[in-house]
Amino acid sequence: MINVTVWNEYRHEKTDEEVKKVYPEGIHNQLASFLEEEFDVKTATLDEPEHGLTEGVLNNTDVLVWWGHIAHDEVSDEIVQRVHQRVLQGMGLIVLHSGHMSKIFMSLMGTSCDLKWREADETCRIWNVNPSHPILEGVGEYIELEKEEMYGEHFDIPAPDELIFVNWYKGGEVFRGGCTFRRGNGKIFYFQPGHETYPSYYNEQVQLVIKNAVKWCNPIDSTYPTYGHHEPLEEL
Amino acid sequence: MINVTVWNEYRHEKTDEEVKKVYPEGIHNQLASFLEEEFDVKTATLDEPEHGLTEGVLNNTDVLVWWGHIAHDEVSDEIVQRVHQRVLQGMGLIVLHSGHMSKIFMSLMGTSCDLKWREADETCRIWNVNPSHPILEGVGEYIELEKEEMYGEHFDIPAPDELIFVNWYKGGEVFRGGCTFRRGNGKIFYFQPGHETYPSYYNEQVQLVIKNAVKWCNPIDSTYPTYGHHEPLEEL
Amino acid sequence: MINVTVWNEYRHEKTDEEVKKVYPEGIHNQLASFLEEEFDVKTATLDEPEHGLTEGVLNNTDVLVWWGHIAHDEVSDEIVQRVHQRVLQGMGLIVLHSGHMSKIFMSLMGTSCDLKWREADETCRIWNVNPSHPILEGVGEYIELEKEEMYGEHFDIPAPDELIFVNWYKGGEVFRGGCTFRRGNGKIFYFQPGHETYPSYYNEQVQLVIKNAVKWCNPIDSTYPTYGHHEPLEEL
Amino acid sequence: MINVTVWNEYRHEKTDEEVKKVYPEGIHNQLASFLEEEFDVKTATLDEPEHGLTEGVLNNTDVLVWWGHIAHDEVSDEIVQRVHQRVLQGMGLIVLHSGHMSKIFMSLMGTSCDLKWREADETCRIWNVNPSHPILEGVGEYIELEKEEMYGEHFDIPAPDELIFVNWYKGGEVFRGGCTFRRGNGKIFYFQPGHETYPSYYNEQVQLVIKNAVKWCNPIDSTYPTYGHHEPLEEL
Repeated sequence: MINVTVWNEYRHEKTDEEVKKVYPEGIHNQLASFLEEEFDVKTATLDEPEHGLTEGVLNNTDVLVWWGHIAHDEVSDEIVQRVHQRVLQGMGLIVLHSGHMSKIFMSLMGTSCDLKWREADETCRIWNVNPSHPILEGVGEYIELEKEEMYGEHFDIPAPDELIFVNWYKGGEVFRGGCTFRRGNGKIFYFQPGHETYPSYYNEQVQLVIKNAVKWCNPIDSTYPTYGHHEPLEEL
Repeated sequence: MINVTVWNEYRHEKTDEEVKKVYPEGIHNQLASFLEEEFDVKTATLDEPEHGLTEGVLNNTDVLVWWGHIAHDEVSDEIVQRVHQRVLQGMGLIVLHSGHMSKIFMSLMGTSCDLKWREADETCRIWNVNPSHPILEGVGEYIELEKEEMYGEHFDIPAPDELIFVNWYKGGEVFRGGCTFRRGNGKIFYFQPGHETYPSYYNEQVQLVIKNAVKWCNPIDSTYPTYGHHEPLEEL
Repeated sequence: MINVTVWNEYRHEKTDEEVKKVYPEGIHNQLASFLEEEFDVKTATLDEPEHGLTEGVLNNTDVLVWWGHIAHDEVSDEIVQRVHQRVLQGMGLIVLHSGHMSKIFMSLMGTSCDLKWREADETCRIWNVNPSHPILEGVGEYIELEKEEMYGEHFDIPAPDELIFVNWYKGGEVFRGGCTFRRGNGKIFYFQPGHETYPSYYNEQVQLVIKNAVKWCNPIDSTYPTYGHHEPLEEL
Repeated sequence: MINVTVWNEYRHEKTDEEVKKVYPEGIHNQLASFLEEEFDVKTATLDEPEHGLTEGVLNNTDVLVWWGHIAHDEVSDEIVQRVHQRVLQGMGLIVLHSGHMSKIFMSLMGTSCDLKWREADETCRIWNVNPSHPILEGVGEYIELEKEEMYGEHFDIPAPDELIFVNWYKGGEVFRGGCTFRRGNGKIFYFQPGHETYPSYYNEQVQLVIKNAVKWCNPIDSTYPTYGHHEPLEEL
């Protein structure tokens, strides 16, 4: 049983009526509701002590799901460093939507992670460009969202290890909307959908992608490599 | 249950006493012996009708394992084309050792697949360079083979999608000895060990890698993409 | 001075009035007209002896540009094999538009190279997703073509070594419209624009991309690797 | 004329007699001595004000070469951040040898950049695995160094965009010893040779690789992408 922790900033939902209507229990609880069908799920939010991400919680997390937006700066550097270390040690990480500018994603990528954006109630069509990848199992050729925030290129990330999705927006832009990265012993998946005023996390294909990604990100059973001084294996 | 077909040229084992000693039942049966612990395994060999790779056999194969060496040219172009189509449709393919110059591997790669080689009873050490990859689950930092044929760079393949192993040889060369490739809807793994006069397929780590690779290559449950003329999804 | 050979099928332009209006001298001569500003350019066409691609011509070609569409099957396998060998030896290759299903591109890729398509006079916007790449020098954030044939995902190619452009189409599709591949010692660039009834090769940004690609594809001054039996470099 | 700044920690050379013998003028001046044959070269060192990397110096640097080892921690976070921004804006960066654990390389990679190491006066053979790459122009099949520090896998870096060299060590290890990465608008090359007690930077092939890398890392003439709010390019 994979242990998933869903982390949410959980601010919009408390103060913005429009968001509250879409996610009355918070984005984290909506994410948890479908992940619980297959995984052992806990949630954590920004305003809990240590943002809910204590050593104990992280050590018991196989895959961490991250949603943040307006309060990236309030996440403490110490906790970011702790999450970063856990990813390098093997914990999976799924970064959703506006998490692209979270401290944790930026520090793992080494780039600005910046992009173009627009909130205009426009259609977004998310195309599968990697049909044999397990994250795409059962997903089909594309996901169509009637309304999603536009995220457009250039997306300032390292070339992804695997490009999974490319997004089309009615306003004329494209976006690498599903990308995998390996960092240290950890696997990372970035996925574009999830603006707080749109019901993207109720979409069944979006849910399927996130479930598949949890399985893909799950750490393998392996010994951490040894680093440092190394005696020769052959006679010198 | 994953359906595996192990294909072997099966010539060395019939005519060469040294090889017969190492693989008395043929390389295919040694490969099958450990794969059967986890998968539904059949074998096929060059001298069977249609090389044992009828439409029926291939349509019931999830992952094909390929070992060939001195008779690459005797594999009929028609069967190669048939296997190629099945890979593009999703069948996994594991190409072992001297299979690097098989018609099927060359046609999938588009390159010469040539390399340096030497049979000199020398130590080969196969280093894990991708520790979070499922093909490496439980494998550890390296596999040491007391004797293996030297395969050296430049290995004329496209840059692999994922580099899994790098081999070290006592004589002074290195080799990208474990590589993944996606072609069409199919996943491919190339793995270096397996010279016919050395007992590499009795090595438990080598066996584990091949088992892990079967699982990684196994097709996902997905619909084949549609190609050809496409009506617009938006009003023009 | 880089030696460029522009190869064109040269059939549409002879028989189709609409195409003749756009490319009265043939697509090859329009391509040559701007490439000649910087390179030593020759042209070759399907109906010449050996399709204009004799051993002599190819041995004196640094970069070959390829446009074909309705007569891919008339290109002889022998010439395809000759071009393939030259690419592996180091000759650059730029495959344009409908060349995606040319024998030479398919044999270098190892996949079907199939895609979705539509001729509907729709807007195509080609986004730069790799801003530090020399193929993009001076090109800017996107190229907008008022009319281009829609080519849509899934594009059945291996994951490109470098993704350069992603295309947006008004009808709702996306496409990896600029991709690099290395095969053997040769560098390959695929670029989407160039439907025979649209004036894409008169667009200055399109021209700039093709010129940049010629420079990028140009072979480096190097010795071809040695393959085959190799004496140990260290004492065994 | 490409503007190169060679940055050196410049500590070993002042205090260690053995190092002083090999690099009496400092590693930076030995690097500068051959780079000056083709580029406009300046040097900068840790103990200068702002480590010699003022805004002015960096703004006039096309490619920065970095050598550091025992004093990584003394490089101020502010200067690291400044260099990081310049790389994202387009400045090339060549990280040499023990620079793998410099703050700047680690922050660009997002990983620990750790590895195995050993100083044992052993042979290192650096194999070309990417023969069409401009960094390899004229370099040949391998570089043999009679003595170099062993750096061994696992090297905890993201999968490089391009793998250029794989190192062999007599003691039994391998290492991805030449790797390219793109971050933001900048190009990065990591190259393994250069232990302070060995004369690697006097080796002509090593010098050629570094010169080729300067040309490859040189920023292209392009406009920085725009980020942030974006008006639709199509009617909504």
